[in-house]
Amino acid sequence: MAEKTEKKELAILRLLQKANAPLASSRLTENLQAMGHEVSERTVRHYLLELDRRGLTSNLGKKGRSITVAGQMELDNARIFDKVGFLTAKIDQLTYRMSFDLHRRSGTVISNISLIPLSLLSRAVPMVCKVYAAGYSMGCMMALFAPGEQLGDMIIPENMAGLGTVCSITLNGVLLAHGIPTHASFGGLLELRDRKPVRFVEIIKYDGSSLVPLEIFIRSGMTDYLGAIKTGDGRIGVGFREMPADSRDGVLSLIQELEKVGLGAFLMVGWPGQPLLEIPVLEGQIGAVVIGGLNPVAVLEETGIRIQSQAMSGLVEYERLFHYRELEARAQALTR
Amino acid sequence: MAEKTEKKELAILRLLQKANAPLASSRLTENLQAMGHEVSERTVRHYLLELDRRGLTSNLGKKGRSITVAGQMELDNARIFDKVGFLTAKIDQLTYRMSFDLHRRSGTVISNISLIPLSLLSRAVPMVCKVYAAGYSMGCMMALFAPGEQLGDMIIPENMAGLGTVCSITLNGVLLAHGIPTHASFGGLLELRDRKPVRFVEIIKYDGSSLVPLEIFIRSGMTDYLGAIKTGDGRIGVGFREMPADSRDGVLSLIQELEKVGLGAFLMVGWPGQPLLEIPVLEGQIGAVVIGGLNPVAVLEETGIRIQSQAMSGLVEYERLFHYRELEARAQALTR
Repeated sequence: MAEKTEKKELAILRLLQKANAPLASSRLTENLQAMGHEVSERTVRHYLLELDRRGLTSNLGKKGRSITVAGQMELDNARIFDKVGFLTAKIDQLTYRMSFDLHRRSGTVISNISLIPLSLLSRAVPMVCKVYAAGYSMGCMMALFAPGEQLGDMIIPENMAGLGTVCSITLNGVLLAHGIPTHASFGGLLELRDRKPVRFVEIIKYDGSSLVPLEIFIRSGMTDYLGAIKTGDGRIGVGFREMPADSRDGVLSLIQELEKVGLGAFLMVGWPGQPLLEIPVLEGQIGAVVIGGLNPVAVLEETGIRIQSQAMSGLVEYERLFHYRELEARAQALTR
Repeated sequence: MAEKTEKKELAILRLLQKANAPLASSRLTENLQAMGHEVSERTVRHYLLELDRRGLTSNLGKKGRSITVAGQMELDNARIFDKVGFLTAKIDQLTYRMSFDLHRRSGTVISNISLIPLSLLSRAVPMVCKVYAAGYSMGCMMALFAPGEQLGDMIIPENMAGLGTVCSITLNGVLLAHGIPTHASFGGLLELRDRKPVRFVEIIKYDGSSLVPLEIFIRSGMTDYLGAIKTGDGRIGVGFREMPADSRDGVLSLIQELEKVGLGAFLMVGWPGQPLLEIPVLEGQIGAVVIGGLNPVAVLEETGIRIQSQAMSGLVEYERLFHYRELEARAQALTR
């Protein structure tokens, strides 16, 4: 009973967050019913009073209710178990929703966002560019968001900039659009020697964690981008993908096309049923190692610049992306 | 072929590490054959020459080979995919090997080890004791290891002390000894309000990660033991366990016995088939939340004292443990 109540309260909070505007109780009731919840408007009003009391919503009179900052935080923390499967579900959902057309070079790709204080931006730019230049990045394209701009649920706060890196899940979407189903199995920390992949040092499966694997490696200080850039010996974040064995030729030709549009990120493609970097691959499948999208900003943590990163934040138009070489000029324009 | 070779070389390194003394090639061959590897002594000698060449073993003449520091590091990093399942396997293996007898109060329990410079020990002791006093610990017993002492594969280095905390996997072993099979499903970060468990903030499954979940939360700076101690609002590391529903009464009475011997760590025991802190539990099972063994030392990271922790390091005699109130005096004796 208590759990049912919580589920409905969370459903209301999610609707208000999604709407990004006040909603009246009648409208909320309609939406809840459309989602399969059996509720009357009277019950919804009862829930709303309780949410007001807990400071999670605010009553704007005739306009309806809006979600408060406390309400947003409640949503972030709530129902953790949903979040474990949620990573895999979110990957599938964004893969389905993105619309990038490789040949027309238009449509949306999946973007991560990293918040950085405007005052630190000029210091950060050269480091970020070095990771792109060394090729430890998902292609060479990126985005820059100004204070007040929105990506997914995230609004860039005042005095902050949002560095947008292309999420490697975008590759799943491109392959899907060409009829190739892709399974993202785990995120790993990859050891490099002389710029070449040697082995996985750590592994975290996407369906076994509520945290994005690469975010864990970054926050725990386990990466070594500085070494990877300077000497070619280091540890970077990558993802492991599995595809049907028969699609291998198709995958290889798409990789070439992706590189042409600045979205090349495949580090290795294995052979049917053969282990890749010691990772077993099922008969009838091939394994592939793709570079983690957050790599170019992850290096900042190593140099003492604290950033706040969110993987798979939302969709961004390909036209909005630019070559990393333009980052310096664009950052200057933003901080001027 | 290359993979087979690597497996055998690693098997040799593991045997040398376990022996903790030089082994002759004849002895190594016997051991490898007993483990199911089909090798001749000639082949083993061939592998050893290759290992010598790579600096992973050193040739001590008639005494045989011993493993080098480089060899130990190679073992740590090698065959990462084994390490994912390895966590679950290690839990089962230690559960099987420990010999603690609850009624006789003797035998071995499973211990974590945290290395701390001797010079920082006196600063660390009060913080560690506060976590025990607040009850955010696996019971009230602990161990202290002097430089040169060994626990499992770990030898305490010079100028360091080893803080031994009882690993909560010990509970699995006690339940097993009373015929109750226990499954360790995930490690979680638990939010407390007013000292009471509210919900899981993050979850990492034991069979989906090469890293111990609690070690991740500690290293990423996601814990809040200081808050938990001071105000009762914080985030601590816990584990989730599943047991047969019919064993519930047995579990509850064992919990009482465990508390009497200073090994009480059950925070919550659920009802058959009922979710516990929103975590679904299968019909015919009960869920339980146990306190993470590393909690008392994890607080040190929050106060800027860097420690190096290894969960599930090895087995230690129950007689070797002491009440945390003795820690101060014992630490003084060690640093004098």
